Amino acid sequence: MRSVCLLGSTGSIGCQTLDVIAAFPDRFRVTALSAYSQVDLLADQARRFHASTAVIAREDLIPALREALAGTHTRVLGGMEGLCEVAANPAADMVVTAMVGAAGLLPLLAAAKAGKTIALANKEPLVAAGELVMAAVQEGQATLIPVDSEPSAIFQCLQGQDRCGLAKIILTASGGALKGLSPEQLERVTPEEALNHPTWRMGRKITIDSATLMNKGLEVIEAHWLFDVPIAQIHITIHPQSIVHSLVEFQDGSLLAQCGIPSMCTPIQYALGYPERLPHNWAPLDLEAVGTLTFQQPDFSRFPAPALARQAAAVGGTATTCLNAANEEAVIAFLDHHIGFMEIPRLVEKALTAHTPIPHPTLEQVLETDRKVRESVRRMAILY
Amino acid sequence: MRSVCLLGSTGSIGCQTLDVIAAFPDRFRVTALSAYSQVDLLADQARRFHASTAVIAREDLIPALREALAGTHTRVLGGMEGLCEVAANPAADMVVTAMVGAAGLLPLLAAAKAGKTIALANKEPLVAAGELVMAAVQEGQATLIPVDSEPSAIFQCLQGQDRCGLAKIILTASGGALKGLSPEQLERVTPEEALNHPTWRMGRKITIDSATLMNKGLEVIEAHWLFDVPIAQIHITIHPQSIVHSLVEFQDGSLLAQCGIPSMCTPIQYALGYPERLPHNWAPLDLEAVGTLTFQQPDFSRFPAPALARQAAAVGGTATTCLNAANEEAVIAFLDHHIGFMEIPRLVEKALTAHTPIPHPTLEQVLETDRKVRESVRRMAILY
Repeated sequence: MRSVCLLGSTGSIGCQTLDVIAAFPDRFRVTALSAYSQVDLLADQARRFHASTAVIAREDLIPALREALAGTHTRVLGGMEGLCEVAANPAADMVVTAMVGAAGLLPLLAAAKAGKTIALANKEPLVAAGELVMAAVQEGQATLIPVDSEPSAIFQCLQGQDRCGLAKIILTASGGALKGLSPEQLERVTPEEALNHPTWRMGRKITIDSATLMNKGLEVIEAHWLFDVPIAQIHITIHPQSIVHSLVEFQDGSLLAQCGIPSMCTPIQYALGYPERLPHNWAPLDLEAVGTLTFQQPDFSRFPAPALARQAAAVGGTATTCLNAANEEAVIAFLDHHIGFMEIPRLVEKALTAHTPIPHPTLEQVLETDRKVRESVRRMAILY
Repeated sequence: MRSVCLLGSTGSIGCQTLDVIAAFPDRFRVTALSAYSQVDLLADQARRFHASTAVIAREDLIPALREALAGTHTRVLGGMEGLCEVAANPAADMVVTAMVGAAGLLPLLAAAKAGKTIALANKEPLVAAGELVMAAVQEGQATLIPVDSEPSAIFQCLQGQDRCGLAKIILTASGGALKGLSPEQLERVTPEEALNHPTWRMGRKITIDSATLMNKGLEVIEAHWLFDVPIAQIHITIHPQSIVHSLVEFQDGSLLAQCGIPSMCTPIQYALGYPERLPHNWAPLDLEAVGTLTFQQPDFSRFPAPALARQAAAVGGTATTCLNAANEEAVIAFLDHHIGFMEIPRLVEKALTAHTPIPHPTLEQVLETDRKVRESVRRMAILY
């Protein structure tokens, strides 16, 4: 029986994680759940899964959560302190990080230092502070199992393989909702259009990141840290069917690919059950019904985000903190109709140009960079 | 430094194995080489690789081989006895079985009982006598590493994975040279047409087996023994590009696939270097240049061989010995222009119908079945 602390339980990954947990009541139990602001859903989940602790990130909502959980044995906590406490609490064997954005950094560091098995669905902390996260993982002897479909695919393909023989990681990208549009059309894309992803049902932030291809840029940096592979050996290919979730190439010319239907249930269940593979209750992939898989080069001239990410990764230090913070704020500004779609990479580029990177930053320097870049991007977004 | 005994060194796999060995002179050295009848090539190879022993299977050619190797330190042996001796000889760590057909059975058993690491490029012994081979592997604590691209793909995909979670093996088939032909056209196919494989350069016997799809039938039986998976869980899909060399499906809905250019060098090198992956000097797969991968159901009505193989495997015992022997002789008769292309599966079916299978046969019963079925198929072939 694995006891699971699930951070970000009311989001897309959070809800699907609870579906998997519900399907295997003999294997998993919930110790703690957390949400940013969805008090009612969090309370429902806490009741249903008999969570020992429920954490609401927005401290002003603690009273509302207390009220919603009145009469239960669930302890109520709030704020970053509450998140870090449950992430490190000995009651949980496993921590699922399904929060959105760099906000997940401190709880992730807490879980890593406490030596947890971490199902990582929240890539931004690795982008913002990969060196600090990996040092904490090392320090706590924690285990990181990626949940996102692409790094999960890489992780699955690398099991039992000769790591010295690894030559290349190939991340697949569906190309997002907008891959067929001209530069002029991209300028006029609305949030509703960008949110209409062709193959994956995901949260709003990652869906916009998919449309700009920034998601691939973030994944390149994530894969660099997770698998200790140089950025130059991590490639991106457009695969519109989202069946091959990513590939690894070895120096003998052999490639391994992980495939499946585009559903987050598979990688979530894999991460929870690892190293075991638990049975599924969804329709499996029928390769012959899919029939055709295609691969093509991304058009980095129309979609500049991955190049920005590589550029930040090459600089290192707080450059990727800046990249991530600028992107998070630009996505919010786009979703709020303050800026156009193509302003997202432009704002990120401006932020990177303005930023003086600090090599090997401390946690304080990362947090300070994150805060300052957000402020500056918010200011720039208002001016548009 | 691994010392390698290579059985069948003058064939297609044998020559490519020597290319790999030549590319890594610090890692591999040749102890013994063998050929069926190509004295001159065998002698050249033995000189070039300083083989301690050279074996010619046809005993009448021993004097010719002696002459060709005069002045060298290479010992000359002949016949099945010579093959079995070098296969079990302590001088070799590894035995590569690249002979064609069930003729490789006795040397394979000898290598298995001697506890060798065996790079298995010769699938017919597993079809003819899978139970005996696997018992010998168990007895000698030998290691079997498949060399054929499809089982090598499966073997690579299963490394480090939860074997209990394995749900399905999916063998890919290019569809061979003749996949677009009508039943009437198939009747009139010449050996030259059937030997013109669209994606793979291989020996003559396996190329004809590819054209009839019997090769997939044999691979189903081979995979059953190698990976201890029920026949019903081994599927065949047509994949004309020969890029995905096979897949495994786990019970969590995840599939792993091994991909690469259609070249035997990759699986040969993998088997020789296992578990290490050695660098290659050929052009790697460029997925974006290939662009499109397709998968479709095989047409088992036009190509009845895989169904015959499944039927024989379901019966078990000497039924698969009969299947293999009948197919080997029918392929020879076809290549010799004695019978038409579609007579190959018809003769196999007749042989299976006439055969009274012996469950759990002894080696003698396997050899006797093999001999009798060959005689009977040769007689039938002459009558056409």
